[in-house]
This record gives sequence, structure tokens and C-alpha cells, in this order.
Amino acid sequence: MAKQKNQDFVTHITPRSEDFSKWYTDVIQQTGLCDYAPVRGCMIIRPYGYAIWERIQAELDARFKEEGTENVYFPMLIPESLLLKEAEHVEGFAPEVAWVTQGGTETLQERLAVRPTSETIFCTMFSKWVQTYRDLPMKYNQWCSVMRWEKATRPFLRTSEFLWQEGHTIHASAEEAQEETLRMLQVYQETAENVMALPVYVGQKSDKEKFAGARATYSMEAMMNDGKALQAGTTHNFGTNFSEAYDIQFQNKEGKLQYAEETSWGVSTRLIGAIIMTHGDDRGLRLPPRIAPIQVMILPIAAHKPGINEACDKLMAELKAAGIRVKVDDRDTVSAGYKFNDCELKGIPARIEVGPRDLENGVVTVFRRDTLEKTTMPIDQVTELMPALLDDIQKTLFEQAKQFRDEHTVNVTNIDELGKAVETGFAKAMWCGEQACEDEIKEKFNASSRNMPFDQEAHRFGETCVCCGKQAKKVIYFAKAY
Amino acid sequence: MAKQKNQDFVTHITPRSEDFSKWYTDVIQQTGLCDYAPVRGCMIIRPYGYAIWERIQAELDARFKEEGTENVYFPMLIPESLLLKEAEHVEGFAPEVAWVTQGGTETLQERLAVRPTSETIFCTMFSKWVQTYRDLPMKYNQWCSVMRWEKATRPFLRTSEFLWQEGHTIHASAEEAQEETLRMLQVYQETAENVMALPVYVGQKSDKEKFAGARATYSMEAMMNDGKALQAGTTHNFGTNFSEAYDIQFQNKEGKLQYAEETSWGVSTRLIGAIIMTHGDDRGLRLPPRIAPIQVMILPIAAHKPGINEACDKLMAELKAAGIRVKVDDRDTVSAGYKFNDCELKGIPARIEVGPRDLENGVVTVFRRDTLEKTTMPIDQVTELMPALLDDIQKTLFEQAKQFRDEHTVNVTNIDELGKAVETGFAKAMWCGEQACEDEIKEKFNASSRNMPFDQEAHRFGETCVCCGKQAKKVIYFAKAY
Repeated sequence: MAKQKNQDFVTHITPRSEDFSKWYTDVIQQTGLCDYAPVRGCMIIRPYGYAIWERIQAELDARFKEEGTENVYFPMLIPESLLLKEAEHVEGFAPEVAWVTQGGTETLQERLAVRPTSETIFCTMFSKWVQTYRDLPMKYNQWCSVMRWEKATRPFLRTSEFLWQEGHTIHASAEEAQEETLRMLQVYQETAENVMALPVYVGQKSDKEKFAGARATYSMEAMMNDGKALQAGTTHNFGTNFSEAYDIQFQNKEGKLQYAEETSWGVSTRLIGAIIMTHGDDRGLRLPPRIAPIQVMILPIAAHKPGINEACDKLMAELKAAGIRVKVDDRDTVSAGYKFNDCELKGIPARIEVGPRDLENGVVTVFRRDTLEKTTMPIDQVTELMPALLDDIQKTLFEQAKQFRDEHTVNVTNIDELGKAVETGFAKAMWCGEQACEDEIKEKFNASSRNMPFDQEAHRFGETCVCCGKQAKKVIYFAKAY
Repeated sequence: MAKQKNQDFVTHITPRSEDFSKWYTDVIQQTGLCDYAPVRGCMIIRPYGYAIWERIQAELDARFKEEGTENVYFPMLIPESLLLKEAEHVEGFAPEVAWVTQGGTETLQERLAVRPTSETIFCTMFSKWVQTYRDLPMKYNQWCSVMRWEKATRPFLRTSEFLWQEGHTIHASAEEAQEETLRMLQVYQETAENVMALPVYVGQKSDKEKFAGARATYSMEAMMNDGKALQAGTTHNFGTNFSEAYDIQFQNKEGKLQYAEETSWGVSTRLIGAIIMTHGDDRGLRLPPRIAPIQVMILPIAAHKPGINEACDKLMAELKAAGIRVKVDDRDTVSAGYKFNDCELKGIPARIEVGPRDLENGVVTVFRRDTLEKTTMPIDQVTELMPALLDDIQKTLFEQAKQFRDEHTVNVTNIDELGKAVETGFAKAMWCGEQACEDEIKEKFNASSRNMPFDQEAHRFGETCVCCGKQAKKVIYFAKAY
């Protein structure tokens, strides 16, 4: 027997304090969220991981549709000549494009890029579809995979192929495009905070950090449990950069031809990485109820005793009818102890233990994954009480994360403080706005994340640049980025 | 002004009787279902087309989950060495694979196939994941795009890239795998008939028509309005063909190593083509209510008159609350006549006209796209009556299609009858089971679709092969295929 079964124990997870990166890898592998693929830099999203993505998709997709966005599907291959039309864009993406050069037995005359993003092909079609101002706005989105030939990869955070959505919109006026750009960032923030329990800083990226071809890029930045920043979503205002390159003109109300204003925005399976590294602890995942594939796990204790299985099934049916995602762990191949650990490892928000003694007393034991608290609940009130309990878990996870984030965000007034702050979290600093200072700070501390909050006046806390000491123009968050 | 607006008229659709193929192209372009992409053989699925696909996905996905299937995501690129492990399979697919040979600036050491289908990479991972019989069955599905470098393409029917789902399952026994193969065909049939209103013949493909590497392939065949067959879904039983090539072994109950039994099954955006060509008429699409993105369109007549817009909005709100997908066509840039035509072109199942005279009498006019009938309905009963009306439209479309299909299916007893029958529909024939006869018939009449119904005894209607006159072994449908 070459193969051994490894199901009867929960394997050791490296503590976060010992090696955060190893902890992350342990968690994603042992929970079965994903696996390494036999293709360089790619991952396989396994059922538990994909079920989280489906929850995220459903929540976002409903919001996009409420905003009047329509879903479409564009080809995954983009001819090189289309990519080349916008100079900045191609410069930004060319180094990480995977190229199709052969189709069947034929060598192609023109290379085809596996899409790294789809602005170029959307623009090509917008140019064909738009005639007059009456056709505007066009607000499209697609759910698809994209490919970026990355050198160093890490599951969910940076892989050669990943799943995402990309919204592409065109508008008749600059104001409307800017409104869309900021509005979609709000949609992302609301979903991150209310659904994924991820507190985020939203703001504008520095010019240096803009998307290739954009006039302005905005992002939401989440803080991971090791203090690093994760860019969790971006929106871009292209102005007329692309519409000039791709000739997207429309006849305006005055009968004149005018270039359309354009935006794009995207989030990806990175969000799963953000959820893991924001909420996870040394026992494994902790999933916010709104995105947990299983919100409640029922564990029969001493399942051979009369009435236990029946009580579990009845409870499951009731909870299911109340719209709760619930399962009974009725495996007879693993021990109760294994099931307890497995439930915690997988981050299931609430666990209900149904045992013979409790059952005699008409109660069950309920365990909360967020606080690790156990309480007793009358079995006939579980269904009634569960929605509020899940809401409370959702809220608590957000508050824990927000408290951590706030405690690890430091207003810094000199370069040493900045260097120290980005070791454990975000440094909020005053900045002259010059790229020289930005580069120096990035170089020195590996502070690869820079984001300027909205409402600058309200955030302002000094007059001099943290780096050069000259007049400060901007408030900016620095952090080490994933 | 180089650009002209083309919105104020519905362009001419070529009648089906004149040129069915041109009719098809006219319909998909004028309804905005899809457009040709600036990439060879690829299409862009536009909002209306994609919304139909989302309905199909939702219906199928719910059924897959009820069957215990879990969704996953596997990489789109497959190393050539993985593809090469199963000889028949690679032979079948190699001629139509698109190859990635460059990643960024680097020339790859091994070519990567853009997946034409994913058996090879699923098998590679199954081999890693499966240890004992307790891990079985594994029933996975993915929604993704695949690429097959086709020479002659037609939107939805045959494109170089298309969207589909591919289910991949492994089982401990041959019986269970066969059960899964037939069960998923049933799921497809049920969805085709009840959701898409497509009557289908289900059965087994001839050995010659099997999927590359399969032991048996089953399909559902729908009849298009020109009498041609469209293979609308397939399921495959691989036996242990792949598990032997990819070493998918598990420890069985007796403690012995055993190869897993495997299946796969898929349907694609072809189904949209089937819907168009089964239900469409010379006015355009006719969409079954269950997959129609808009089930009811409300048209205000003389919208400037008092109360009209308010009545429309109220009706829309009521219908929406009743779970009906409804819109008001409140465009003021096109005429009422245009809206009428547009509604019919787009195949919206029911149209409600709200005009001043009707409104005075407390009624509205309801138009059914299936029968082209107009009736009057009290406005305060519309919401109550609409679900039954939509059900009736759904049923009628199915019955119309079934009647057409049955009328164009002919039992043939000689080769001339067969040749005549496949000009306008399906020929049901007795067949000796030899490939020589199959080839001869295919060659002679371009009868590229062959499918053998289940319950052969019940279908049997003769003793001699339609081609060679020898002892018949099989009942089989011949047709020209898309």
C-alpha cells in the first residue's frame, strides 16, 4: 500500500507568530480551499474555496446589476495589434502576457495575448457600438479568468491565472465617468465591509501606482494580520485616453463628434486571500457568516444513542427552512474530536453540538468561532435565535478586524517612525507629493502600498513632508503590500 | 457625420424559407445576442445573449448541486505532457488546440494548451486527491470557457472559444459511473425540455461518434427549424481508460488498490443556438419564459396622456413583486411601432399595452409571442393571471416544437427514404451496427448525426439494415448535424 489515509487527524498548522507565510499556506491546503496546479504559477480552486467565491460573486453581481451594469463575455484571446494601440497600457502589461502562437497545426501570423485585462478589446467594440449620446452610458461587466505571467506566485494573492470581474463603462461626460469610478469603489467598500467583514481604507493611488493607461486609479486597501496591506479592489478613470486610441466617438446633443469617457474596475479571487489573512487565527479560518458556504455545522455527539441523529436532522431541516446554510457532520469514519477541530479549521461561524445529556434537558451547546465561546440554547429556540447570532458573529469579526487595523495604523511625523510603523501596519504620513520622496520611502522600507484618503483636509495632521521636510501637499498611507 | 443612427427602424430579417442560415445571422445580430469579435472564430456575447446564458446556468447549476456536484476551477492552460498521456484523447483534440508558447519575454520549454476540455488535468489531480473508497465519489463541475481552433465557425453553434460547463466525476464502481452518466443525461433532458422548451431525443452515440477516450458517449439531439440536428449535450463514461493512464487508484473496501471509474458531461452556449433555431420565426426570437431575461414588456401607448406612465410603473412594480422579470419600454427616442417590433424581434414572451382608452375601461391588451394572439385583461387581474399565462406560453412553445419534431421524424426502410428524410428532419432506421454502413450513409447524405435511442426493443420496427439489408441490430436516428 503506497497510499496512506490522512483523514483521522487534523495536521499541525504553523502558528502565525512563528511564520505567517507558512501559516497561510498551511491553512489554505488543510482547509481544501485550493491546491497547487501542475501548471507554473497556477492554482486549482477546490470546492470549499470556490463556494466562497460563488458567495462573493452573488453579492457583487446583484449590486452591479442594481447599478445598471450588464454582464457580457468577451474573447480570452486578444490580437497583439489591438493591445499595441495604447502605448502606456501595452508597456505596463507586455512583460507579463502569455502568448498563443499556434492554432492547431498552424503557426499564427499574429500572436494572440491571453487577456491580462480587457480594456483593449472592449474599446474596439465600443468604437463599433456607440453612435450617439443616446447609446450612453454603456456599463458592462464580465466574470472571467485572466492571465499574468508572474514570477513569484502565492495562492489567491498572486497567481499566473486568476478569476475576477472586470467592469468597463463609457460615458458622455467626464463628470459621469468620475462619478462611476468613485461609485464603484463605494460598492466594493460596502461589500468588503458588510459582506466580507473587511475594513478597508479607500482612496486614490499615487501617480506612480496608477493602472497602465489610467488618468486616476482608486483602491481599497485591507490590512492583513501581519500588518501588510492587500489591495483588494481598484477602479480606474481613463478619461479619453483609450477612446482616443481606439476611436470611440459619439455624436453629442449638439450634433458634434466627441470622445467617450471611460472607466474600468475589478476585484478578484484575491479577496479570498484577504478574508483568510484578516480573520484567520492559529486554529485555521474564521469565515464571516455572509460568505461562509456552511454557516452552521451540527455535530451529533454519541450518534449511536437513540434520538441523536433524528434531533440533528430535524434541526437541520428547520435551519435550512429559515434560509441558513447548514450541514450535519454525520461522518462515521472520523472521531468527534476530529470533527470539532475540522469545524474550527474550516472557519464555520457556528457549531451546534447535539449530545444525549443535553438532549434530555432540551438544550444544545452552541460554539461561536469568532469568540470561541460556548453557550447553551434551548433546542426549540435555536432556529429563532440563529439569525441574530450569525449577525453578531459577522459584526464581531468586522469589529475585531477594525480594531486591529486601527491599532496598527500610526500617524508618523518622521522617517524613522514611518519605517517602524510599516513593520507592523500602516503609516499615515504627510507627503510633499513628489515622486522622489515616494521612491525613497518605497526603496528604504519596501513600502510598496501608497493610498491617499479622500477628504484630505479632514485627515491632515501636519505641514511638512515626512521625507524631505518641505511643504506637505498630501496625506498618504504607506504600507508593505502583498 | 460619418456615423448614422440606426435605431428608428427594425431592419429586415431574411425569411427562414428563403435562407435559414441568413435568417439565423440576422436574428442574432439584430437582437444583440452577440457580435463577431476581432479575433478569428470568436464571438462576443452581448448583454441580451449573456442574460439568457445566466438563466441557463442558474437552472443547471441548481440541479447539479442537488445531485451532489461541487463547483471548482481548474487552470485554463494544460502542459502538453499531461495531454499526451491518453492516446485516443490527444489524437482527437490535438488538431484543434491553441498553444501558448511564450510567457512574457520567455519562450516556454513546454507548450501549454489552452484547454479544449479538462479531463487530463482533472485526472492528474484526482490521482493526487483520491486515497481510499471513502473519498469517492468525487463529483466536480466547472463553468469556464474552452478553446477549439475551428476552421468554419458560426455564432453560438461552433466558435473557437465557447462557454460551457464540464462535469468530471470519479466513482468506486462501474455501475455507479454508468448510473452517473445516464443520470446527468436525464438532468440535461429535463432542463432542455422543461426550461428551454427543447424536445430532445436522448440515446447513445455510435462507436465512431464517441468522445475521444470514452467507452460510451450519450447525447441529446434537438431538431432545428430547418430539420437539422443539434447535439445539445453529451455525457461520457470513460470506464478506467483515463484512470489507468493517469494512475487514479484507490484502496477499496477489501484493502486492494483499484482504478477509479470516471465520467464527464457538458453543455455549452450552443444551447442558445438551439433555442434560437427551435423557437424563432420570421419576426425574430421566441424565448421560453423560463429562460427569457425579460418575460413581460410593458408598452405605454400615448405616454404623454395623463395616468399612462403611472399605470405602467404600478403594473411593473406589482409584477416584479410577484417574481416576474418585467420592464417598461419607456424610451422616448423611438416610436411605438418600433417598440412593438422590437419586442417581437427580441422574443419577449408577453407584451402588455397600456393605452388611454383601455385604461379608461380598466383593461390592458396582452400579446402572446408564441401564438401572436391579443387578448384584453382587467388591469387589476394582470398580476394574478400572468404566471399561468407564462406557463401556458412555455408549454405551447414546447408543444409546437415537439409537434414539428415528430412530424419531421420518419421511420425509413430503404436508403432512398433515408436520403429524403434527412433533407427535412430525422430518419429513424434499422441498422446492422457495422461502421461500413454508417460511413456509407454519412458520406452519401451528409448524415453527420447518429444517435441510438434507449429501450431499443420498444423502438424496433424492422429486421433488416436500411443500408446493406443484413440482419439489423440497432435502431438509430440519422440526421444532418450542426
